[in-house]
Amino acid sequence: MNQPILQPDTNDETITPAMGSLSTQPYKGTRDFYPEDKQRQNYIFGVWRTVVERFGYQEYGAPILEPLEVYTAKSGQELANEQTYTFEDRGGRTVAIRPEMTPSISRMVAARRQELAYPARLYSIANFMRYERPQRGREREFWQLNVDVFGVDNDQADIEIITIADAILKEFGAAETDYQIRINNRTFINDVMTQWLGLDEATTRSMVKLLDRKNKITEADFNDQAFEILNDEAGVAKLQQLVAVTDLSALPEELQSYESLSSLRRVIETLNDRGVGAAGFDMTLMRGLDYYTGTVFEVFDTHPDNNRSLFGGGRYDGLVGLFGAEPISAVGTAPGSSMIENFLEVRGLFPAFAPTAVAYIIVIDEQYQAANELATTLRTAGVSVEIDITGRKVDKQIKTAFKKQIPYMIFVGENESTTGEYTLKNTTNDDGQTLNLEQLVEALSK
Amino acid sequence: MNQPILQPDTNDETITPAMGSLSTQPYKGTRDFYPEDKQRQNYIFGVWRTVVERFGYQEYGAPILEPLEVYTAKSGQELANEQTYTFEDRGGRTVAIRPEMTPSISRMVAARRQELAYPARLYSIANFMRYERPQRGREREFWQLNVDVFGVDNDQADIEIITIADAILKEFGAAETDYQIRINNRTFINDVMTQWLGLDEATTRSMVKLLDRKNKITEADFNDQAFEILNDEAGVAKLQQLVAVTDLSALPEELQSYESLSSLRRVIETLNDRGVGAAGFDMTLMRGLDYYTGTVFEVFDTHPDNNRSLFGGGRYDGLVGLFGAEPISAVGTAPGSSMIENFLEVRGLFPAFAPTAVAYIIVIDEQYQAANELATTLRTAGVSVEIDITGRKVDKQIKTAFKKQIPYMIFVGENESTTGEYTLKNTTNDDGQTLNLEQLVEALSK
Repeated sequence: MNQPILQPDTNDETITPAMGSLSTQPYKGTRDFYPEDKQRQNYIFGVWRTVVERFGYQEYGAPILEPLEVYTAKSGQELANEQTYTFEDRGGRTVAIRPEMTPSISRMVAARRQELAYPARLYSIANFMRYERPQRGREREFWQLNVDVFGVDNDQADIEIITIADAILKEFGAAETDYQIRINNRTFINDVMTQWLGLDEATTRSMVKLLDRKNKITEADFNDQAFEILNDEAGVAKLQQLVAVTDLSALPEELQSYESLSSLRRVIETLNDRGVGAAGFDMTLMRGLDYYTGTVFEVFDTHPDNNRSLFGGGRYDGLVGLFGAEPISAVGTAPGSSMIENFLEVRGLFPAFAPTAVAYIIVIDEQYQAANELATTLRTAGVSVEIDITGRKVDKQIKTAFKKQIPYMIFVGENESTTGEYTLKNTTNDDGQTLNLEQLVEALSK
Repeated sequence: MNQPILQPDTNDETITPAMGSLSTQPYKGTRDFYPEDKQRQNYIFGVWRTVVERFGYQEYGAPILEPLEVYTAKSGQELANEQTYTFEDRGGRTVAIRPEMTPSISRMVAARRQELAYPARLYSIANFMRYERPQRGREREFWQLNVDVFGVDNDQADIEIITIADAILKEFGAAETDYQIRINNRTFINDVMTQWLGLDEATTRSMVKLLDRKNKITEADFNDQAFEILNDEAGVAKLQQLVAVTDLSALPEELQSYESLSSLRRVIETLNDRGVGAAGFDMTLMRGLDYYTGTVFEVFDTHPDNNRSLFGGGRYDGLVGLFGAEPISAVGTAPGSSMIENFLEVRGLFPAFAPTAVAYIIVIDEQYQAANELATTLRTAGVSVEIDITGRKVDKQIKTAFKKQIPYMIFVGENESTTGEYTLKNTTNDDGQTLNLEQLVEALSK
């Protein structure tokens, strides 16, 4: 009964439906979630919700469409232009299906900046679309938790958000060795580029992009491209020295006095002190989006078969201000359900599938009135019950109960409705008992 | 703190944001859900979920985008062409943001028709878009529960779906006098039109459209338009006789022998027998969508200030077959959250707003380490806790606790962390107690 996690990409034009009929395939890059898959997704949503609510975060919702300019302003060119589903509506407005939540929640905070109580702790679980080549763990439609704290301009907010990222993975049953939380700081990156390497703004941008790609290219390519940007062997040597560092205290002496490094150090040390052992420094951690202004972080899966970035986040103090309001500090993170699904899948951390119904009522001789009365009694007692209303023979109904993996069957015919005695059968071990109504309710409502 | 339920329609082009900045308004016809509103929506979602799961329905998910032809095939021209958000993707496919779920779930059932166990009981809670003039209870983006049973070709399925519609309203605390469930049957409608009124296919279609509009136009307009279609005074008289009937036994003698009427009668009588007192016959009940083939029903609010259709449903046996599969019987219903929101609002049936956090930790002299240790202990015990991490003066932090409406405050400073004794204050009645850690956990985890 287990469904494959990822739908094979069979829904392109090479597969044509039967003559004149519509295709049964979902739109390219999107998934149908049958109950088994949806239950896994709901499990992920449930863990997210449990963890963020423990920290007092409150849920909000935002529209699936936003004016395109909300994204072009600050999200980075690739995301805003190449990856969004953009179109003109019937009123001539250019709109986008949201590819991320950060601009929407920033807009919402800006709109109610006077009424909100700070720190404003907000979360949402929502669907998004990005126009990209579908691949494992990366679908065109995807679901994300967004968890953000607004109105705190000190490190405690950065620490809290990373603590939540860590708490989520632990709540899923992950061990600390299953992931790394790599942390950097945009201000520190900028200081290193401009003050230590002496780069101008354009060269800094190129260098940030190169560092962002470092783990995807070879050492030789990295060095070649670094030389192209810096045009200076000494600079390349300094850069190599820098990216090799994983412990802040091993950073070059001159950098140790940077104010921006103190903040980065405080965040990592406090996290380690508070039991977030997976948190550490990574000089190549840049994050793709343009709106980050301080701490940036990314969670990496350490599993050999799934060694990739799971999700990230950071501080983006400038975004709310784009909506005509005074700037409001913000830190957030956004795990996606597909990445988490792979993370749990490779480790066998998903709970087993269980159908909604606890009992399946097998109806003999179409005794629907009696079957419904019994079902109503059980439902009122909080027991989820399905009734077989197909009118098929009893053996076929029994087969259905097994196919649905429902734990119990109850047989209802004229005899049962007269005597008030019912046969309850366990579908997993074939145990049977004869019970009256009261006993039946008791047996199933535990 | 209560937010208005419906956003005023202020987000059109007449309101321009501050010079050079982005608008804080959501896209026209969509809503931002701040925590108070989202909590109401979640309350609605929760009741839906509780009720359908009691009946053994299992949740699924489907993509937000579908190929346009999925809707043009059978949904009715207005919905497919005039009301959908349609655009061409970068691969040249014409796609639509889903305006409804029925075609998607029919497609999904067709795709797994062999693997599914019937009766297949499925539900989803999802967002949709329709391009329409925004009005009270009708927004461009909206949320719906879809609950459908597949593979049952007898009335028991129709009865179950209407029973669920009724159970949902009762679960919200509605009295049976708060709503009517008006029921008709597409086959019966067709029989009446063709056999009793002697109409051809085109005239039947016009007449069905007219009956569908009957409650929105005057008696005189109805009669005029009926005459235009029938071109026959005697036919108009027969029609008037027909639409006045609210009790099946009062229908004209000739109709009493129709097989299609037996089914309609059985559905209504069984519902009444099973305690669905609001169920009754309505000859003008048509439902706008082309795919219905048997029972159709609509739930109407009886409140004088909100007298309108809340939601509807019916049998659509032909839709799965459009996807190249053998036909599979289907019955479903789809309440929307905005309509339900108005229904609950006019009757004061919403629970009061409650923030996520039970306690707010006021931090004295930036004792964040101690505050976090306390918070971790409480969170581990299942108590949702927010910490004030702003570094502001204590009185400002206290004001925030009140503004957030959090029931308790806990004060943490050096003294508390040394003695292990904490002051717990009730924000609603100003009661205060001094408690040690164990007592604190006990006081808050009840």
